[in-house]
Amino acid sequence: MIEWFDDLALGTRFKSASKLVTREEIKRFASEFDPQPYHLDEAAAEQTPLKGLAASGWHTAAIAMRLAVDTRPFGAHPLLGLGVDELRWLAPVRPGDTIHIEGEVIELTPSKTKPQGIAKVKWTAINQRGEPVYTFTPIAVVPRRPGATTSV
Amino acid sequence: MIEWFDDLALGTRFKSASKLVTREEIKRFASEFDPQPYHLDEAAAEQTPLKGLAASGWHTAAIAMRLAVDTRPFGAHPLLGLGVDELRWLAPVRPGDTIHIEGEVIELTPSKTKPQGIAKVKWTAINQRGEPVYTFTPIAVVPRRPGATTSV
Repeated sequence: MIEWFDDLALGTRFKSASKLVTREEIKRFASEFDPQPYHLDEAAAEQTPLKGLAASGWHTAAIAMRLAVDTRPFGAHPLLGLGVDELRWLAPVRPGDTIHIEGEVIELTPSKTKPQGIAKVKWTAINQRGEPVYTFTPIAVVPRRPGATTSV
Repeated sequence: MIEWFDDLALGTRFKSASKLVTREEIKRFASEFDPQPYHLDEAAAEQTPLKGLAASGWHTAAIAMRLAVDTRPFGAHPLLGLGVDELRWLAPVRPGDTIHIEGEVIELTPSKTKPQGIAKVKWTAINQRGEPVYTFTPIAVVPRRPGATTSV
């Protein structure tokens, strides 16, 4: 059971549940945050490089965050991010796609001054055909197990 | 008037309109995409490192995207991003804050094979006290002016 920074190791892996992305959700998110033809209008979207309606990349990012939160990679500790490295959209997310995310711990840096560490988990969102559609590496602050820092 | 990749120069600057971020919006976004106590529950949020209710970082990111879309940095051409570099959350966005974004072109790379280029604009979101709260550098694909590539 992973709960503290000290429970994580390079290569520790996580896998989320799946989420169906609906046409209605794509248009609702886009109308509020990314009102461009790719995301709102089927006919106009056909004429774009995306060749059809697709979710806003920021919608995909938000869905991936929800999947990460529900995965609880740090047990009861929340996800608190300073930022994100290597955010890339790899393929369109279409209405009716089902995506999940898979993560791997790629960097662990204990703080020298606070009872916490920085954990970088590289997450990849994958659709129902096994295709990676999005990847991001949040820079998360995770508390150390009480006593862990004094025992070294 | 900026319309094509060829109209952009290093140092070209943009400034968006402002957006009021409400308590209701913060909780609505968080309940769908980032259901953590920081973003949903005032009393619980007081006990966290954020010391009070704050918008999800992904909500701030989505609001910044909307402000960027409305700023039309590439004229009639849409914002089409391959990804984002240097995404960092710098300070909490609180209920009642008003944010806008300011951008600067920091990198321009014409494609060698297609009539387009990669433009990197470093955007910073700033609150009503002039404090930077968020920064991100999208990697955008922008078409070249017809004829521009053959005239070089």
